[in-house]
Amino acid sequence: MSRIDAALLGEDMTSQLARLERGELSCRDLLEQQLAAIDASQPVLNSYLAVDAESARRAADASDARRRAGTARALEGVPVAIKDNIDAAGLITTAGMATRRDNAPADADSPAVARLREAGTVIVGKLNMHEAALGADNNNPHFGACHNPHRPGFTPGGSSGGSGAAVAAGLCSAALGTDSMGSVRIPASYCGVVGLKPSRGAISTRGTVALSHRLDHIGPLARSARDLHLLLPVLAGFDPASAQSRAIHFAPAAAGPLRLGVVDFGDTVEWDPGIAEAFEGGLQTLLGLGHQRVDLPAPDVSPGHSRRAGLLVCEAEMLIEHADDWEQQRERFSPLLQKLMAYAERKSASDLVDAIRVLDRAQVQLQQWLAKCDVLVMPTTPQRAFSFDTDTPANQADLTGYANFAGNPALSVPLSVGAGELPLGLQLVGDIGDEWSLIALAEAFQQAIGWQPSLPQACNDWWPR
Amino acid sequence: MSRIDAALLGEDMTSQLARLERGELSCRDLLEQQLAAIDASQPVLNSYLAVDAESARRAADASDARRRAGTARALEGVPVAIKDNIDAAGLITTAGMATRRDNAPADADSPAVARLREAGTVIVGKLNMHEAALGADNNNPHFGACHNPHRPGFTPGGSSGGSGAAVAAGLCSAALGTDSMGSVRIPASYCGVVGLKPSRGAISTRGTVALSHRLDHIGPLARSARDLHLLLPVLAGFDPASAQSRAIHFAPAAAGPLRLGVVDFGDTVEWDPGIAEAFEGGLQTLLGLGHQRVDLPAPDVSPGHSRRAGLLVCEAEMLIEHADDWEQQRERFSPLLQKLMAYAERKSASDLVDAIRVLDRAQVQLQQWLAKCDVLVMPTTPQRAFSFDTDTPANQADLTGYANFAGNPALSVPLSVGAGELPLGLQLVGDIGDEWSLIALAEAFQQAIGWQPSLPQACNDWWPR
Repeated sequence: MSRIDAALLGEDMTSQLARLERGELSCRDLLEQQLAAIDASQPVLNSYLAVDAESARRAADASDARRRAGTARALEGVPVAIKDNIDAAGLITTAGMATRRDNAPADADSPAVARLREAGTVIVGKLNMHEAALGADNNNPHFGACHNPHRPGFTPGGSSGGSGAAVAAGLCSAALGTDSMGSVRIPASYCGVVGLKPSRGAISTRGTVALSHRLDHIGPLARSARDLHLLLPVLAGFDPASAQSRAIHFAPAAAGPLRLGVVDFGDTVEWDPGIAEAFEGGLQTLLGLGHQRVDLPAPDVSPGHSRRAGLLVCEAEMLIEHADDWEQQRERFSPLLQKLMAYAERKSASDLVDAIRVLDRAQVQLQQWLAKCDVLVMPTTPQRAFSFDTDTPANQADLTGYANFAGNPALSVPLSVGAGELPLGLQLVGDIGDEWSLIALAEAFQQAIGWQPSLPQACNDWWPR
Repeated sequence: MSRIDAALLGEDMTSQLARLERGELSCRDLLEQQLAAIDASQPVLNSYLAVDAESARRAADASDARRRAGTARALEGVPVAIKDNIDAAGLITTAGMATRRDNAPADADSPAVARLREAGTVIVGKLNMHEAALGADNNNPHFGACHNPHRPGFTPGGSSGGSGAAVAAGLCSAALGTDSMGSVRIPASYCGVVGLKPSRGAISTRGTVALSHRLDHIGPLARSARDLHLLLPVLAGFDPASAQSRAIHFAPAAAGPLRLGVVDFGDTVEWDPGIAEAFEGGLQTLLGLGHQRVDLPAPDVSPGHSRRAGLLVCEAEMLIEHADDWEQQRERFSPLLQKLMAYAERKSASDLVDAIRVLDRAQVQLQQWLAKCDVLVMPTTPQRAFSFDTDTPANQADLTGYANFAGNPALSVPLSVGAGELPLGLQLVGDIGDEWSLIALAEAFQQAIGWQPSLPQACNDWWPR
């Protein structure tokens, strides 16, 4: 195994792509570095559930050939990895579930993966995730916990924990996650990377194991906000074969100072120590860029209330999505998941309507906040990553759920944190189709704090020298 | 009572508005003509549930004053009427239900009515409808049947039967209806008027008695397609206080020849005699305008299957919308409505998810058809208006439901029919936001067939001379 070049692996996708374009290294070289890093990291992080090294090497070689031939595509030769609830042809889609681990490999790419491949990316493999995407610690009982590369033994967040961990540790250039109540943004927050949940329907969710047709989104995770400039146009597009897909008209990034909405959550959210202070620092940075602060009232519907309604929607949909397995091999669902689904089994159609109307009220809350500002800013999570030895807090998705209930785009970008502190995300939430404003604001924020993509210090502990 | 000027009342709104603008008659004159016609027609048609003559007269006089002052608004002085499940301040919103007939009057306008008022229209009153909007014959057990002005004793369709009948009989210049599976377009088809169900969310449905938050739309009915040019911009707009509202980007009307999709429904729809021939005539007219025909395959999900799924969604939502009345005065719901809601009461949360997924498949069907053409064309209904002495057919909404399940805009415009034949609608269905293409196509169709708005012959039977 070649010595791992941490500086290269820690660069963002935009830098790595520029190196490939300049011919400083081949696509195959970049892939081999990442494959070596994956091998070295797996015993510690367990971020991958499957690595398709041979297919990836063939794809990288094909990319190198196209580069030599002058027919390179937009993201030619960039290695990306896929959360394991999204179909990639030739690989099993486990959704982190025992019931699916022996399934036949997917015979076709999901549209999102197909679009990545058409853009020239190399699919490296499939990433660890919380069982069935219903939960946010990625302590997977069937495939093992995925660990946070900033502090093994701690959660990377979830449900796209493998996506957050692999991107943070340089084990791919970017990754896909899914996000039904925060599952892209929570791991982005905990792992110190950027995560985007786009407007509902912008990226087709066809070809995924659904948690909730209503709430599911696919979103990219990357090491910088500027990488999203490259990823979003590749991933987004109307898919007539999906009832969840929409033709989203992306507005140009807003020009001039923005009104940044700051919600007074009061005691509707239980904050860990230090979160408010870290957020306040980030907010001051944004205000220093000339943006204006708009203070907004506390939510009418508490985040906890809408979170519980969102969970019922997911659980009821899972009863249909996994109906055959639930009927025939219920014992292969984890005890906690069995409990959640059995709860939904006792609920009536009108209970579900009731829950959906709670989500509608949360959507109206978000819309009313956004009627008074251009972009909402808040911490992505009420806490940082926590140890697997402690109880999983119930409120991880309290700040992220709104954007799923309403269908609005939301982005998590790392706040500046002190030495030895774990990462924490700053969440930006905008109007439907206003992704470019969020991305531009996140990019300006990263410039303002002098963000340099790099690997967590802890990686040095497990990599071969 | 002044002698009724049938020629004036039969004109479309655009013509009547031009007369007001030229000062040929006052807003008050136009209103008085319509009030006289309402009085004369009520014993026969029963299209209004409430007429607010005094408020309307004050509003008409205020319109005349603004016209004299040179401060006329877009639709200054045009009398419009409102389906009785939409709030208009000062009037009771019955939704055609006994449980609501003694409610306090609405204390505020719904956004749609507020927008009409702000544009200068005069609100004449509230229109008859099918009980709770769940059905399409408008044989209302609590307020009496509304009759078709082309043939009293026959249904005007529903659930917006009063809207169709009042517009057809010249009893207002335009009307609002609601449409959850076809309830604007079915009465438009049966009554020989134009009805538009816009893209989901384009017109706020806040301030209505909901049938289904998922499927409800508000839409205008008018005597010509060109009237929609005036009505749609007034009615549409994002409402941050509604979870169903959307900021729809209306595309300009498509230029050049359109690909018109014609679905081979085969035996998935049960057609009355003569429907196919009438449609074929309309299609030939459109092809004569230079448009192209694209043949499309039969639906994968039969219209009947998705209709039944849509009904369950409506029924389950009604259990929540009318929860208190259902608990406390169930006997005041009609026996049929009790039966429908009791059916939903026995259904589980996962049964509802199952039904929603059937609607999703119907949406995909529509999207896949529209991926191969610009506009779908089909009859609006598989039958014409039927006598109240016959059974109500189950399949009235088989062709209209797709646009609700998918959220796409759909318009019904009268086909050319022979002397003595009852009206029948031609339905146009387009991509989300493509309302202007549908309206332009309907307008060109009406020009091609030499459509002249006028009142049904039968009106002569009941009007005073």
